[in-house]
Amino acid sequence: MWLPSQLPGIQAQIKAAGYKGDVNALADVTKPPLSAVAKVGGATGAFVSKDGLVLTNHHVAFGVIQYNSSKERDLIKNGFVAENREAELPANPDYRVLVTTGFDRITDRILKAAAGKTGRAYYEAIDLAGKAEVKACEQDPGYRCSVVNMHYGSDFYLIKQLELKDIRLVYAPPEAIGNYGDEIDNFMWPRHSGDFTVLRAYVGKDGRPAPYSKDNVPYTPPAFLQISTTPIKDGDYAMLAGYPGTTYRNRTAGEFADQMRWQLPTRVELYGSILKDIAAAAPAGTEAAVKYAAQVQSAKNTLKRAQGELEGMTRSNADTVRKEDEQAMLVWLKKQPNAQAALRDMDAVEKLLADGRATRDADQLFMLMRSQTQVLRAAIQLQRFAIEKKKPDAERESGYQQRDESLIEGNLKQVQRRYDPAVEKAILADLLARYYGLPANQRIQEIDAVFGKDMAGARKTLDSLYATTRLGEESERLRLMKADSAEVAGSTDPVMVAAAKLMRAILAGEQKAKERDGELLRLRPAYMRTLAGFRQSQGRAMYPDANSTLRVSFGKVTGMHVKDGMEYTPVTTVAGITEKHTGKFPFDAPEALRKAIAKGDFGSTKDPVLKSQSVNFMTNLDTTGGNSGSPVMDADGKLIGLNFDSNWEAVSASWMYDPRYKRAIHVDLRYMRWLMAKVYPAPWLLKELNVPAE
Amino acid sequence: MWLPSQLPGIQAQIKAAGYKGDVNALADVTKPPLSAVAKVGGATGAFVSKDGLVLTNHHVAFGVIQYNSSKERDLIKNGFVAENREAELPANPDYRVLVTTGFDRITDRILKAAAGKTGRAYYEAIDLAGKAEVKACEQDPGYRCSVVNMHYGSDFYLIKQLELKDIRLVYAPPEAIGNYGDEIDNFMWPRHSGDFTVLRAYVGKDGRPAPYSKDNVPYTPPAFLQISTTPIKDGDYAMLAGYPGTTYRNRTAGEFADQMRWQLPTRVELYGSILKDIAAAAPAGTEAAVKYAAQVQSAKNTLKRAQGELEGMTRSNADTVRKEDEQAMLVWLKKQPNAQAALRDMDAVEKLLADGRATRDADQLFMLMRSQTQVLRAAIQLQRFAIEKKKPDAERESGYQQRDESLIEGNLKQVQRRYDPAVEKAILADLLARYYGLPANQRIQEIDAVFGKDMAGARKTLDSLYATTRLGEESERLRLMKADSAEVAGSTDPVMVAAAKLMRAILAGEQKAKERDGELLRLRPAYMRTLAGFRQSQGRAMYPDANSTLRVSFGKVTGMHVKDGMEYTPVTTVAGITEKHTGKFPFDAPEALRKAIAKGDFGSTKDPVLKSQSVNFMTNLDTTGGNSGSPVMDADGKLIGLNFDSNWEAVSASWMYDPRYKRAIHVDLRYMRWLMAKVYPAPWLLKELNVPAE
Repeated sequence: MWLPSQLPGIQAQIKAAGYKGDVNALADVTKPPLSAVAKVGGATGAFVSKDGLVLTNHHVAFGVIQYNSSKERDLIKNGFVAENREAELPANPDYRVLVTTGFDRITDRILKAAAGKTGRAYYEAIDLAGKAEVKACEQDPGYRCSVVNMHYGSDFYLIKQLELKDIRLVYAPPEAIGNYGDEIDNFMWPRHSGDFTVLRAYVGKDGRPAPYSKDNVPYTPPAFLQISTTPIKDGDYAMLAGYPGTTYRNRTAGEFADQMRWQLPTRVELYGSILKDIAAAAPAGTEAAVKYAAQVQSAKNTLKRAQGELEGMTRSNADTVRKEDEQAMLVWLKKQPNAQAALRDMDAVEKLLADGRATRDADQLFMLMRSQTQVLRAAIQLQRFAIEKKKPDAERESGYQQRDESLIEGNLKQVQRRYDPAVEKAILADLLARYYGLPANQRIQEIDAVFGKDMAGARKTLDSLYATTRLGEESERLRLMKADSAEVAGSTDPVMVAAAKLMRAILAGEQKAKERDGELLRLRPAYMRTLAGFRQSQGRAMYPDANSTLRVSFGKVTGMHVKDGMEYTPVTTVAGITEKHTGKFPFDAPEALRKAIAKGDFGSTKDPVLKSQSVNFMTNLDTTGGNSGSPVMDADGKLIGLNFDSNWEAVSASWMYDPRYKRAIHVDLRYMRWLMAKVYPAPWLLKELNVPAE
Repeated sequence: MWLPSQLPGIQAQIKAAGYKGDVNALADVTKPPLSAVAKVGGATGAFVSKDGLVLTNHHVAFGVIQYNSSKERDLIKNGFVAENREAELPANPDYRVLVTTGFDRITDRILKAAAGKTGRAYYEAIDLAGKAEVKACEQDPGYRCSVVNMHYGSDFYLIKQLELKDIRLVYAPPEAIGNYGDEIDNFMWPRHSGDFTVLRAYVGKDGRPAPYSKDNVPYTPPAFLQISTTPIKDGDYAMLAGYPGTTYRNRTAGEFADQMRWQLPTRVELYGSILKDIAAAAPAGTEAAVKYAAQVQSAKNTLKRAQGELEGMTRSNADTVRKEDEQAMLVWLKKQPNAQAALRDMDAVEKLLADGRATRDADQLFMLMRSQTQVLRAAIQLQRFAIEKKKPDAERESGYQQRDESLIEGNLKQVQRRYDPAVEKAILADLLARYYGLPANQRIQEIDAVFGKDMAGARKTLDSLYATTRLGEESERLRLMKADSAEVAGSTDPVMVAAAKLMRAILAGEQKAKERDGELLRLRPAYMRTLAGFRQSQGRAMYPDANSTLRVSFGKVTGMHVKDGMEYTPVTTVAGITEKHTGKFPFDAPEALRKAIAKGDFGSTKDPVLKSQSVNFMTNLDTTGGNSGSPVMDADGKLIGLNFDSNWEAVSASWMYDPRYKRAIHVDLRYMRWLMAKVYPAPWLLKELNVPAE
C-alpha cells in the first residue's frame, strides 16, 4: 500500500517485479496514469475512455442500479445495456465520482497550531486547523477537500478532489452474474463473479461539475486506462491503485496482543451470545425472528469476520512476529542519539493504551447495550440530538448536523420494524449479567443508577421499562425528534429517562477518549519515526497505514498453496459457473449466459492456455476494504482486471500482510469483454473502449 | 482391473504408459513378479524379502496388532518394532496369507454339468460341480481352493492357494500414524496416513504351511518386490496388483438406471428415516442411545456411502453413458450373424430383472425388518438354525453349518447390549407404515398374517409382541439355540411365532431368487459375449468385473482437478501432518514424529522437488474394496507405495470408472523408510529390505 510518492524510491523493486513503464510517472496522483483512478461511490474506479467512462464494481454501483430499477424494469435482476449514449440512466443524486487534483503535504501548517498543547487541546487545535484548511480549499466551487493524517499524526496532507455529480449507468450485468455466489462465495476462492459495472461521468457545458441535466456533456478525465488485449497468465506482473480504508499494521506490539487476546475473542464470545439470545427469544418462524433478520445477519457477519481475523492472525503468529520486530526496533533505538526522548514518548503511549484497557470490558458491554438494542438506542439518539441541536450547526457532533437529520429520521422510523421487547430485554439481560460480573473498578455509575446494582434488580427494571415505554411507537419517536430540547430532556418515558442518565456516561467517555486520542496523536509520532528509522536501517521502505488515500500495490498473478496437497490456481473459467449452477439463488446463472457458455464461442477473449473463457483471477496484491473497484494493470500499465474481494485467509491482513496467505480477487476484464461481445452485446461500448468487438 | 492374462494383449498401451519391464512376465500370477502379491487378511499384501517379509496396510493387519495388545503393552497406541527376528509376535491364529499357485480356466468342466438345465437346477449343477472341483483340489494339504466365475457365468476358474498360517508382526507404526485422521480423513485428500505394517510368514521346517510354532522357519516366497529408492513425481508411471472385491461396471443399462433411480435413492431415504427413528426413540444421552451406537454408526456409513455413490454416478452421468453405450452395442449386434439368439437371451435377462423389480419395494422393506432389528432378527436366526440343523452339515445353508455355530452364538449373546424395545418397535412401525402404503401386488401374505392388514393393527401387534417376548433375555435365546428343532418351531414366545411365520416368506423368496439367479447365470453370458465382441470391434479390451481375483491396473502418479480453480497435488508431505495436528484424536501425531518433522532430517528419503518428507501420493489407478495393501510399482517394477484408500469422488467407481474423478491413495514407501530410519528405528529391517539405513 505504497503512497505514489514513495514509488520512485523503490523503483528497483518495481522494475525487478516486471513493470515496463516509467516508475517516476506513477509518483504524482494528479498526473497520468494515476489521475485515471477515481474515488467512486465511496470505493474505487477508473476512467476508461476520453469521454468519461468509469469502470467499477457491480457492488460499488449497486445503489445506482437499484435507483433505476422498478418492478416493471428490474435492472438488478436483468442487468442493463444502454443502447447508446442517450439511453444512459442518471444515478441517484448523491452518487459521486471524485477526481483528485491536489495532494499536498501541510504538516507544518497543521502542527504549528498544536505546538505546546497536550491532550484534548492538542486534538482540537489540529481539528480546527484542518477544518480551516478545508474551508479555504473548498472556496473553489466544484471541489471537495479533506485533511488526512499519515503515520498516526506524524504527517498531514490536504487533498483536493473534483466532485462529479452527474453520473450515469451505462452497462451492468444481471445480479446473478455481477454477484454470482453472493454471501456463500464472499471471501472465497474459486470465484466466478462478473462484479463490474460501467458508468459515465457528465459535467455542465462549461466543463464544471453540475447536478444531472440532460444538457450536460461527458466529462473529459485527466487520463484514462486502456484495457489490455493480451492474455494474463500465472506469474505475470500486476499492479493496483485504489483507496484502501484502514489498516493497523504499524500498531504497537501491545495493540497486536490486545487484538488477538482480548478484542477478537471477546467479540466472538459476545456476538455469539447475542445471536443465541435472539434465537431463543425470537425462534425461527416467529414474527419476531423476521424483525431481527437484519440484526442477526449483521451480527453473524461481525462474528464471522472476527473469527476469520483471529484465525488468520493466529495462523501468521501476528503477535509474536510483531513483538519480535518491535523488540529488535528497541534494541536499534537504544543505539541512536535521540533514544531517550523517543522512549519517553513511547512509554507514555503504552501507558495511555494500558489506561484504555483498564475499563475495556465495561466499555465494550456499554457499547453493545447502545448498538445492539433498538428502542434504547433510539432513546439515546433522541437525547443526543436534543443536546446537539442546541448548538450552532458547525459545532454539533458529526452525525447530528442539519445534513444528518433525514438520516436520523430514517433510523427512527425503522425501529418498530426491527424491534421486539422480549428480544431487547434478553440482549440487555445478557450484557448486564456480564457487566455485574466485572470487578468494582469497572462499574459505571450511570448504568448502576439506571439498572440497579445487581441482576435481580436489573430484571425488574427491564420488565418495568419495556412494559411502559411508548418508544415502540413511531409517532412518539418522531414527536420527540421534533420536540424542543428541554421537553426531550424532561421526558418521563422511562426509557427516555434511562437514556438521559446513560447520556452522562457516554459524554464523559467521549471526553476521556478525546483526551486520550489527543495524547496519542501527539505521542505516537515518536513511535512511527523510530519504526521508520529502524526500517531504513533494515533497507526497507515503510508505507503509512491505509487511511482512504490513494495507494499503489505491485505484485503478480498467482494462485495460493491452500494446504499441503491442495492448490488454488490463479485463473477461473466459465466451467466453474456451470459447476456451481443450481438454478437457485445465489447460483442461478442466467439462461443467456449458460447458453453462451455451452456454445463455447469465446472469440478474442478465450484464454489460450485454459482453452476457455476466463472469469476471475487472483494476485498477491495488497488490498483492504475500500479497494473495491481498483483497476489492476499489467506490466505495460494496461487494464487487466477490477479488484472486488480478498480470500478468507486474508481477513487478518488489515493487521498483518502475510505473503503466504494474502490474495486479492479480481474480475478478469476478458470476461467483461466477452459478456459485452457475445452475451449481452454492446458493440458501441467495446468500440469506445477500443477493444475488439468479437 | 485387468486379468494378468490380458496384459500381453494390451502390451502397446502399457508400454506407451511408460512401463519398462517385460509385459509378458506379468501374465502368469504364479510366476514373478505377480507371485510376490499375496492375499493378506482378506485384502492384499506383497512379499518384500526372500525371508517372507510381507507388507500390507496397518488397517489390514489391525487384528494382528490388536491381538498382541494389552493394557500393559498397547501396540495399537505405541506401535511395535521387533528388535530382531526372535522378537516378532505371532498373529491371531486365524490370520492368513494366501499365495496363489494355480489359476486355471475350467469353464468346460463346470458348464458340462449344467448343460440342458435351467433356473435353479442350472444354478445347483454349477454349484455342485464347483464344490467337487474344490474338494479334489484341497486333497493337497496346506492349500485352499475356490472356483470363481468371470463375466457373470461366462467363464470359470479354479484357484489354488498356499495357506500360510504362521504370520508374525514385525513392525507397526502407532495408530496415530497408521490411521492419522481416521474417519474424518477417510476417503479424503490431502491425506497423511502411514497406513502400513510389516508382517512375516513362517512355515514348518519341512517348508509346508503350519500353525504357529517357535520352531517354524521363515517362508521363502516364490518372488519378492524390491522397494524403490528413486523419488516419484507427478506423471510417473505406476502399476498396482491386488484383489479388488466387486464391481458392477458390466451390468446392463437397466441395472444402472435402477441403481441410480431406485436403489440408491431409496437406500438414502430408508436409512435416513431409520436414523431419525432411532434418534427419536433413543435420544442422545440415554442408555438406549448407547445401545444403538454401533447400529447408528453402521447406518450412517451406509447412508453416506449411498449418497456418495449417487452423487458420483450423477456427476458422471453414469446411466446415460451406459445406456448410449448399450444402444450402440445393440446396433452393432444386429449386424452380426448370431444376433437373434443373443437378443433372445438378452431379452430374457431384461425380463428377469424386471420381474425382480416388480416387488422390490416390499422386498427391501422386508429385508430391513430383518437386518435393522435385534430381537426379531435373533428370532428369525433361531428359527432358521432350527431348520438347518436338521440337515446333514454339508447341505445346510452357508452361515448355519457346524463351523458357524460359535459365530451364531456370539451374535445371539450380543443382542441385549444392542436392544431397546421402544427403538425396535419404532423402526418396525416406520417400515410397516411404508409397507402398508404399497400396492396390493406387493403385499407379502406372511407379513400381513403376523402384523395385520393395516397400521392400526400393526401398532397393537407390536405392543403386544414386545410386551411379552422373552427373547430380550440372553439365557432364553441361548436355550432356544441349543433346543431341538421341534421345540423351537413350536415355541409360543410371540416373537418366535412371528418369526416362524415370516420364515415361510423368507424361504419362498430364497427359492425364487435362486431360480432367478440360475437363469441369470445361464442367460447373462450372451450379454457379456455381445459386449466383448462390441468392445473388440471398438478396438478396446474388456476386463471382467472384479470378483476378488488378482487384477492389475496401470496408470500414473497424478493429482486431480477438483473443480475450476482448485487442484489436488499428487504428493503430500509431513508439513500436512503438522497442519492437521490438534493434539486430539484423530489428529494427535505422536511427539516422536513431531520432533522428527521439526528436526527436518529426512536423509535419503527427502523429496528433491518438495524439499520435504513425502507421506502419501495419489494415482489414477483403478481400485475398489479389497485393494487395500496392494503394492504400487514404478516403471521398473520396483515398489513405491502401498494402496490404502480412494478419494470420495470415486465412491461410485464400483459402477463406473470416470478418469476425471477416480483416484487411488497410497502410502509413499519413502515415508515408511524414513519412519524406520529416523523416528522408530529398525535398522536390521531396512537392511533386510535392501534399502539405505539413513
